[in-house]
Parts: sequence; structure tokens; C-alpha cells
Amino acid sequence: MTRFVDVGNMIRWVASQGTENVLAGMIGYLENDFARWETFDKIPRIASHTPFGVIELMPTSDHETYGFKYVNGHPSNPARGFQTVTAFGMLADVHNGYPTFLSEMTVLTALRTAATSAMVARKLARPDARRMALIGAGSQAEFQALAFHAALGITELSVWDTDPAAMEKFAGNVEPLGLHVTIAASAAAAVQDADIITTCTADKTKATILTAELVKPGVHLNAIGGDCPGKTELAAEILTLGDVFVEYEPQTRIEGEIQQMPADFPVTEFWQVLTGARPGRTSPSQVTIFDSVGFAIADFSGLRYVRDAVAGTEFAVDIDLVANPEDPKNLFGLVAAFSPVH
Amino acid sequence: MTRFVDVGNMIRWVASQGTENVLAGMIGYLENDFARWETFDKIPRIASHTPFGVIELMPTSDHETYGFKYVNGHPSNPARGFQTVTAFGMLADVHNGYPTFLSEMTVLTALRTAATSAMVARKLARPDARRMALIGAGSQAEFQALAFHAALGITELSVWDTDPAAMEKFAGNVEPLGLHVTIAASAAAAVQDADIITTCTADKTKATILTAELVKPGVHLNAIGGDCPGKTELAAEILTLGDVFVEYEPQTRIEGEIQQMPADFPVTEFWQVLTGARPGRTSPSQVTIFDSVGFAIADFSGLRYVRDAVAGTEFAVDIDLVANPEDPKNLFGLVAAFSPVH
Repeated sequence: MTRFVDVGNMIRWVASQGTENVLAGMIGYLENDFARWETFDKIPRIASHTPFGVIELMPTSDHETYGFKYVNGHPSNPARGFQTVTAFGMLADVHNGYPTFLSEMTVLTALRTAATSAMVARKLARPDARRMALIGAGSQAEFQALAFHAALGITELSVWDTDPAAMEKFAGNVEPLGLHVTIAASAAAAVQDADIITTCTADKTKATILTAELVKPGVHLNAIGGDCPGKTELAAEILTLGDVFVEYEPQTRIEGEIQQMPADFPVTEFWQVLTGARPGRTSPSQVTIFDSVGFAIADFSGLRYVRDAVAGTEFAVDIDLVANPEDPKNLFGLVAAFSPVH
Repeated sequence: MTRFVDVGNMIRWVASQGTENVLAGMIGYLENDFARWETFDKIPRIASHTPFGVIELMPTSDHETYGFKYVNGHPSNPARGFQTVTAFGMLADVHNGYPTFLSEMTVLTALRTAATSAMVARKLARPDARRMALIGAGSQAEFQALAFHAALGITELSVWDTDPAAMEKFAGNVEPLGLHVTIAASAAAAVQDADIITTCTADKTKATILTAELVKPGVHLNAIGGDCPGKTELAAEILTLGDVFVEYEPQTRIEGEIQQMPADFPVTEFWQVLTGARPGRTSPSQVTIFDSVGFAIADFSGLRYVRDAVAGTEFAVDIDLVANPEDPKNLFGLVAAFSPVH
């Protein structure tokens, strides 16, 4: 039997634990996996692009557990009443290939994206960072705010989105949780006094939602919306203002903000900062840029975390996903057993 | 909601329809999809190899529907009480990326592999073929026998396997269905009078279960067990006895029997025979060889067929795999709605 967490159970589990507690726990799993980065199988995700959007498979393995995520990205979905991003994923035992855990990952992807951002910012942002600006107030915004509160103590938020209703939704969701939100009149106003800038918009174009003169010395830039060939958010010049950190360089070259730069543009894989192999922030005035596209190992961490956390609880159920004949060479016997006698 | 067919429902559905009827229906879907081969996105499957076996993802898309299969291949599994191959798969709408159909595919893979073999043999075997030899009597054997009965009227079977219990199991399963089985004393004896030879063994090695002198003029060779780098079944010389047909050349070069041959060894993609673009069998004495490894489009056909066949029946259930907030930008609202008031 395979354990399964559906959307309802994922939501009820997160609510029962508290979103910030879940994010904090997930950061622990992420740090554990990023610190043993070299032990994982890694390939850029396998994308199927269409005029509507993209569908991707993101596999990885630590040679004990195999995991993958199915995820789509369809920027025009919200206008038609659909989620931009939906996802599900699974874990399997490498020794026999059997799927052990299946989970919705629409909510889980939102959690792991925010937890990854906060894990990285805790290493790269100035220790005295207190204010975060959010450009983009879609599905990811609240999860970012709560992750940065949990991991860095950020309580002051400014937000800008071209959709005023989305900003109101964001403020309405996070202010009751003790965060203070300023709704800005422009991207420039939002980032004015920010120590951390999170960009998270969904347009599938080479957009410029942030220009270089808005990025002040000492800022940590958490750029998560540019994650697809032809989909970027930052003016290319911004990438030359400081040091650029990525998850997995071969994938980010294809999908990240650095697709705007030459192929030898220098970047640091974040796991090297975590292990101490490479420097992170080296001065208070340095600009640090996390060019995040989302990598399979973070999904693997998220799946592992939920699998472990819901074990033995009512938040997972068994599903019958793998045929299990008594004689493993007699798969047909399963069908024969249910066939009418002739 | 996503429709889901678990193992129990798949087995009960196949039994209720009759395995041969299901195989015949599936051949129709396969021919439909192979005939429009050029319209599909195609890539070699994405494999994660370990000393234990392989785990693969097999995606494809016809730009209206996207599908993929998760499948493992672990030759040492049966000795430990596990299936060599387990699988599941899904279909999604390309326009919004939403998963619409999830299914077990351990049984379905067995069906689609056999249906593909029979579809190909109906075009390539001699029209007067009456006897099939099966080398390998594992999980796939009964499905092959029934598919060749359904599509080509084959009733005379000879079988050879190094495991006598597996041959007895095979005979015990298919003789009650009206097929006549001769248990052979060797591979050579099994293929003696065969018009069609199906090789389907599971060793993950460069095995030689068939040598060239055993392949007589006019035979159709349905070689399905060599499907992994380093895993072949045929003496290389056999591949020079006739014409070799494959599913998708770039994948078969990596995984098929032709991995033993130079990179420019000539092959024909079967869909071209189906559409008439390339010749199939051209004489009664020609040897035809289907070097089958299993391709994503056949899984896509199998999933489409089951999805359509179980629509509106009790053989599928709804599962809650995709979060569906009322406001698509308010994913967090789902969690908030279940959170205790502070």
C-alpha cells in the first residue's frame, strides 16, 4: 500500500500544526538535504512547453529514496478560475522501486518554495534585516511572508501588485497573524526601505518588474518568479550589482534570471554556502541575489518532511497503487481470480 | 477532482470485460496514436539507474493531453516477493495543466506491452502464422498469449523458462482460456516450429537466450525483454538476419537489442509501417524483428483507453489531488479557513 495525502488532508495538517511551524520544520529538512547535495542524482527538470504554459517532471534520488514532482505553470490560469501552479509528487524505495508515498503538492510546493527562500535568506540577508518588500501578491505571497517571519523574524512587509484585490487579499491574510503590511503605490515605493526584496510574479514574459536603481546596497534579493525559458522579472543590470546564488546551476542557466547573461556569468550554488565551501554575504553593503527557480531536491525535502510528519496520523490514507500478487510472476492470476468461470 | 483507478478496480474492470476484449480495444487506441506519431512530443525516458534496478519517467503529449508513467524495473524483485515491474501514470489537460486521470499501471503496463506486441505482429508476422514460442514465462507471458490470440488468432503456444514453476503457472493460466501450451525442454525446442518467437526475460545482463541458428526464415521475432542499457536477450547476429523495427529510435538505441550494433545500424520506426510510409514484411521468408523497449506513447494510449472505458462506471473514483481555492490567488486562504482562531 502507498500512503496518500490529498489536498484536504494537507490543508488540515498544515492548519493543525500552524503554517509557520510547518515552514520551520521544512527548513530543517531542506538544510539537511542541501548539506548533502553532492549525494543526489540531479538533472534539469523535464519540461513540456506549450503556448498555454508548461508541464514539468522533477525527479531526484539520494540512492535510498527516489522522488519526483509533477508540476504545471500556466500564467493565464487565474483569469479563468484555475491555479497558476498545481502539483503532486511521490517518493519510492530505491531498493525495489515501489511507490511508498503520494501527495498533493500544490500547497506543498507553496510551502517548500517559501521555506527554501527563507533558508537561503537566513544565510545571505543582513542579520539586521527587518523589512521585506514583496513584488507580486499571488498564491505564493503569504507563504513567503510567514516563512521569513518564522526564519528571520521579519514583521514589516510592503507589497506591490498590479492587482489591488491581490494586495488586499494578502494584507487580509497575514495581518491577523501579527505581520504589518504596507500596501504600496508602486514597485519603487514598495522597495524604498526594504532590506529584503522578494519578486514573485507570474507573467510568462521577459518582464522588468525591478530596475537596478531600486536595488540599494546591502539588500538581499529573493527572485523567485523568473523560472522558465523566456520568463524573467529583473532588469539584467541588477544581476551585476552583487553576487548571484542559485540552486542547481545547469537548470538555472535555462530557466532563471541568468538566462539573460552570458553562459559563463559567475554564480554560486547555495549548498556550497551552507556547507561553508563558498562564501555567502561578505559585507553589510553587498547585494546578494538568490536567482531561484525551484529544484527537485527541495520537493524531495518537502515530501520527506510531510511523509514523516503525517506517519501514524489520520492525515494520510492507504491507496492501492501497486499490484501485489502472492506469486510475483503471476500478475495475470489477479485478473483470473476475478474473471467469471466459462 | 481527478479520476483514479486503483489496482483493485483495474483488475475488476479487466475481469468484467474479459482480458482479450480489453487487449483488442487497447490495440485500437494504440493504432490510433501510432498513426499520428508525428504529432506527439517525444523524448527518451528519464532513467535513474542503481545497482538494484531502474526507475523511469515516461512523458509524452499530443498538445491536447499530457501523460506520463512512473515505472521501475528490478530483476531481483521476484526472488524477494516483489513485482519486477510496478507502475502508475496520469493524464492532464494541456490547456491548464490540471491532472484529470490517475491510474495504477502495473496491470495496465502488462496489457499495453502485450497489445503493442500484437499490433506490430499483426502487420509484420506472416498472415499464416499459427504457432508462437514464448521464451520467458514471467508476469508478461499470459498477456502476450492472449493478445496474440485476440489479434492474430494464435492458439498454439510453446514455452521455455529456466523456472519450471513459471511454465506450469503459464500453462495453468491460459489453457482454461482455450489456448494449447507445450512446455518445452529448452529454448531450442520451444522455437523449433514457431512462426512467431516472443522473448521476454528479466535478467539485467547481456544475456543470449536465443542464437542465430534458431531463427528460421519467415519468423517474426517479438523481442521485448531487452529494454535497458546493458540488458539484452538476443545474440547480436540475429539482428542481421532480417529487418529491425522499433518504437522510437533514439530511445531504442540506448535501451534495445540494437545497443549491440553500430549507431548507424538501419531500423524502421513501426509507425511508418502503420501509415504505409515504409515497408513492413516484403516476403514470406523474410525475418522481421520487433526490438521493443516500451515507449511513452503506448502508455498514453493505454491510459486514454482506460480513462474512456471506465468513464461513468464504478471502476474509477474521485480523488482530491488539485487544490481548488475559490480565488485562485488565495491558496493560503484554504489553510487559513481551517486554522484555529487566535
